[in-house]
Amino acid sequence: MTTRTLSSSQPWAAIDIGSNSFRLELARLSGERYQRISYIKESVRLGAGLDANGMLTEAAMQRGLDCLKGFGEQLTGIPPERVRAVATQTLREARNRNAFLERAQAVLGHPIEVIAGREEARLIFAGVARLQPSDKPRLVIDIGGRSTEMILGRGRKPVLAESFGVGSVGLSMRFFADGRFTPEAFRAAQVAAGAELEEGLTLFRRELWQEALGSSGTVGAVSQVLAATGVTDGRVTPAALRWCIERCIEAGSQDKLQLAGLKDDRRPVVAGGLSILYTLLVQFGIDELLPTKGALRQGVIFDLAERLQPSAARDPRAASVAELQSRFKVDTEQADRVAAQAEKLYRQLNPEPLPELLRELRWAAALHETGMLVSHHDHHRHSAYLIGHADAAGFSNNQLQRLATLALGQRGRLRKVEAQLSDAAVLDQIIALRLAVILCHARRLPAGSPKLVRQGRQLTLHCPKAWASEQARTRFLLKEEAEAWGRSGVLELMVV
Amino acid sequence: MTTRTLSSSQPWAAIDIGSNSFRLELARLSGERYQRISYIKESVRLGAGLDANGMLTEAAMQRGLDCLKGFGEQLTGIPPERVRAVATQTLREARNRNAFLERAQAVLGHPIEVIAGREEARLIFAGVARLQPSDKPRLVIDIGGRSTEMILGRGRKPVLAESFGVGSVGLSMRFFADGRFTPEAFRAAQVAAGAELEEGLTLFRRELWQEALGSSGTVGAVSQVLAATGVTDGRVTPAALRWCIERCIEAGSQDKLQLAGLKDDRRPVVAGGLSILYTLLVQFGIDELLPTKGALRQGVIFDLAERLQPSAARDPRAASVAELQSRFKVDTEQADRVAAQAEKLYRQLNPEPLPELLRELRWAAALHETGMLVSHHDHHRHSAYLIGHADAAGFSNNQLQRLATLALGQRGRLRKVEAQLSDAAVLDQIIALRLAVILCHARRLPAGSPKLVRQGRQLTLHCPKAWASEQARTRFLLKEEAEAWGRSGVLELMVV
Repeated sequence: MTTRTLSSSQPWAAIDIGSNSFRLELARLSGERYQRISYIKESVRLGAGLDANGMLTEAAMQRGLDCLKGFGEQLTGIPPERVRAVATQTLREARNRNAFLERAQAVLGHPIEVIAGREEARLIFAGVARLQPSDKPRLVIDIGGRSTEMILGRGRKPVLAESFGVGSVGLSMRFFADGRFTPEAFRAAQVAAGAELEEGLTLFRRELWQEALGSSGTVGAVSQVLAATGVTDGRVTPAALRWCIERCIEAGSQDKLQLAGLKDDRRPVVAGGLSILYTLLVQFGIDELLPTKGALRQGVIFDLAERLQPSAARDPRAASVAELQSRFKVDTEQADRVAAQAEKLYRQLNPEPLPELLRELRWAAALHETGMLVSHHDHHRHSAYLIGHADAAGFSNNQLQRLATLALGQRGRLRKVEAQLSDAAVLDQIIALRLAVILCHARRLPAGSPKLVRQGRQLTLHCPKAWASEQARTRFLLKEEAEAWGRSGVLELMVV
Repeated sequence: MTTRTLSSSQPWAAIDIGSNSFRLELARLSGERYQRISYIKESVRLGAGLDANGMLTEAAMQRGLDCLKGFGEQLTGIPPERVRAVATQTLREARNRNAFLERAQAVLGHPIEVIAGREEARLIFAGVARLQPSDKPRLVIDIGGRSTEMILGRGRKPVLAESFGVGSVGLSMRFFADGRFTPEAFRAAQVAAGAELEEGLTLFRRELWQEALGSSGTVGAVSQVLAATGVTDGRVTPAALRWCIERCIEAGSQDKLQLAGLKDDRRPVVAGGLSILYTLLVQFGIDELLPTKGALRQGVIFDLAERLQPSAARDPRAASVAELQSRFKVDTEQADRVAAQAEKLYRQLNPEPLPELLRELRWAAALHETGMLVSHHDHHRHSAYLIGHADAAGFSNNQLQRLATLALGQRGRLRKVEAQLSDAAVLDQIIALRLAVILCHARRLPAGSPKLVRQGRQLTLHCPKAWASEQARTRFLLKEEAEAWGRSGVLELMVV
């Protein structure tokens, strides 16, 4: 295995492609110490570029691409495994997401992963927990451009994470589109925010936490205004928010608003942000909210560093796979068997496997029978659905989709995963998983050690000589498998 | 409520649209007594009309339609609620199923429900259990044209039901397409059948049952040959099957086969049927298989009679819904609340509701949050997926699809269920469910009694006067709901 030495002096990079701002942070980690090298934030307001049909406008895409081009230049020389770019609500929603992502990845020079709302929440908590440690049970709130994340946790452990579809950009566009600040608009915005956040009421109720922290732009901006105007020392309280909202209404419009400490790029989203924030404080009984160090981008860096540790035990995705196995009542003995057999075959094809591809293969094997909970019939399709749609901490949507593809391709015709087979990495994973499923079809490990050999487009599976009549069914399934690959035109499989 | 008197002297009718034969049975039930009035079986061989792309050929469809036209004439005068037509594997598979079903329902004059394999198995067991009662744990096997059902049960209770994708028509077409009977073809057919049945090996293992029964055409036909030739008294044993297979090989082809008791319409499928039967007996350790009275069509009649009993407690679908709630960890308190509220609203729109539509509404409410197990986000979509794909005893695929549609339409835009809203019954169910979900959104019953009134295309929801500020969010959600209906163009909703 070729391993690159990961010197602790080398920097890490996180790119947060948000609905309001894009952010790039470079940092060094040594032990528990987090040292920021540089931080760039650009107000791209991608989320404002979603039209009524859920399509990103070309203008908004261009703003994003210009920004990412600049970020890409900052990343030169950083090992790719130390860079992670994540995108949140606007790209979760945008129907032309893929068109944008393709161009964005090209200018950035790194893959971009769209992460689910709960995963975003978990990473935010990781950032806060490390940069501002505490033993108290705490509520962390992050008001983004098009979603709001709430996390309940203690120490480094997030206990509950949720994402709600309301944010400063979205709410401002809906209730303050003309830039006018009226009491009616604030009231309507608060009712709408309250309806969205309603479902969190019992989950995050007051008894469960002792302090409330606000990460993210909205809370930071409001806190700066409150400190600059001397209304508070920077902490956010219901009374202070009412004061801010009154100032907005007095001014009558965003152009006329004069508030010390308010940056111009906050102006178009401040009314929406204040409405959510005020609703949150009142609805959840929050007397004061402290602005916090630590946000999504730092969480991304800590998470990436944990993944790359030599021991896989710390990889948060491993725990997540185990949780999914339990949630969907997987027969873990069979899953382990298939995972072990698939890994063996994969290593025969790739003597120096990329660790991440091997991990994906093992996780796909761990989850390939989840669909049995829905129905035995077509369970591979149900597995793909469940994996592709489940909340799964630590995973990006993209990686869950890859696992779902492997589960879908575990058996049956190859046509349903045809498009993905052109990716050589996925191809080898699918071969290994399919053959492992066949070899373990009797829910035991196969007798002897079948060996898989590749010569160009030709794969040969050497079956143990000892295989006698009781392996007749395995041989039959392997023959069918060879026919399936023959029909696919991708490669030839011989079974000898 | 208008109820028709269901006199016990009136007949019941079951239509079984199988892959090999179509069957019509008319019978009377009085107490435990089952009295056949008439039975028609036509060898339509619909399953042989599936082409390589999974499309039913026009010729096969025409054979089916001709047969159903004749059946339809036999059904004149039977109350429609006493008629049930079910279709099995070929229509589960056929990609142009809907085109055929539309024409078929028109000529038959009754709806046709496609049922899942396990549901078919359960109904077969119901037929056998009632017509040939026993206290012994038993294995019931039904070899159909394109699928084979196996059921383990005792008394009237099926313990385990599975369906395997191998049948007499399919196997004959694959290994004996040219009508020639060779030892090689029999061997290959047996290996293929064995591979399909493999997954049943531990589920239906020998220790779990004391007698094995075979319903369906294949077992009946073979049993008749064995009795007519004097090889056995009609019971099917491995030795007797070997004898049959040898006769086939001696004859060399289906045209030359001379066996006393073999009907001509069995000739094209006898080799496939024998191959499955022999594989089953050897693989599952069955020393003898007894042909049985009772089959799918009688199960359909018993099931229908149970559904129509005054007490809903016997409806097998109620137990099935409870099982799904437990499997997918539903919050049953909330489900009950929504069901009660939805029923209230539905009755306000339909003072004399059809009991079946009301049941569907309650079941949809019971299951509308199943998708939460997958993810909070878009849970209505996950609920629809789970309901639409889950094994659920007692339900036809069609009815599960209707429940899935209701779950999908429980919230959000109406466009996703637009096509179904033209069905007035579904429209009222969706209105009642959506409003109930909103009224119970705080996970408690609403204060007071909101009342829903219809005048033509205009619905008015009268909210209780007592609703004060704490219902502001409910009012907000209702306002959004009124807007959604306004946009749909289907009706107007006013909230006062």
